[in-house]
Amino acid sequence: MIQKTNARSRDDLNSNIAFLVMDIGRLLRVNFDQRMRRLGLTRSEWWLVAHLCYFEGISQQELADVLDMTKGGLAKLIARLESKGIIERRGAIQDGRATKKVFFTAAGRPLGHKVDKGARQLVQESESPLRPEQAETLHELLRSVRQTLLPPDPG
Amino acid sequence: MIQKTNARSRDDLNSNIAFLVMDIGRLLRVNFDQRMRRLGLTRSEWWLVAHLCYFEGISQQELADVLDMTKGGLAKLIARLESKGIIERRGAIQDGRATKKVFFTAAGRPLGHKVDKGARQLVQESESPLRPEQAETLHELLRSVRQTLLPPDPG
Repeated sequence: MIQKTNARSRDDLNSNIAFLVMDIGRLLRVNFDQRMRRLGLTRSEWWLVAHLCYFEGISQQELADVLDMTKGGLAKLIARLESKGIIERRGAIQDGRATKKVFFTAAGRPLGHKVDKGARQLVQESESPLRPEQAETLHELLRSVRQTLLPPDPG
Repeated sequence: MIQKTNARSRDDLNSNIAFLVMDIGRLLRVNFDQRMRRLGLTRSEWWLVAHLCYFEGISQQELADVLDMTKGGLAKLIARLESKGIIERRGAIQDGRATKKVFFTAAGRPLGHKVDKGARQLVQESESPLRPEQAETLHELLRSVRQTLLPPDPG
């Protein structure tokens, strides 16, 4: 049992959006780790693969932002997934500068589909206690919070 | 601009609880990084300090779970915060085994209060577009999702 603290009541956390959101994120990651182990993917590997299902063709810099990784950490991860034959980088010109964009290989794409399928199953299970209109309300409220936190669009 | 992918529509993400929750977590962390820089705290440092406001006296093993860190990574982080005079470990017996529990030092406690105050400000700002009853609904729905994901209580 975790000891009760004198500082702030842990009951507060149940009404704390930051705690709830980050703790659900943690539980989703821990749960998905187990599902992805049988595909031979570590957490950082499935994290990239799952995002690439939505962001294929993204530049390395943009991918670092989306994944919340340092450029160095991402470069190592990409090299590992390239050596496994799952993804590949292709040169491109963006905003007048040479850049590398990240794609699945033909051999890696089916793995991406499996990861995506597993993610959708987990999402469905997470929301299983909610009625469809409750899930919709939840998404709407979360979109509103997310919009508030997004940095102003420079465009 | 991020390229549109052929694989799955990015519009799907706006109704994906896992994406919304994890992306809000990311935005909260990036935002809080900036606020905590002026207190001289790195991300892993404020992450521990913020949790200790709620979980003071927690064992190192439990803290590793809550923070989603490896035992080795947490040991290094604790050593750093100890050397800065912010936290301290004290020996205890738990479940018949010797363990170390983590506390603020007297000098570190005011820093804990500042981090906690900053966190509450950020939480308030994040929910600023929501009416009080909407925020309550949001917390309730998130609690329900969290409950679904929690591992069964072994007790």
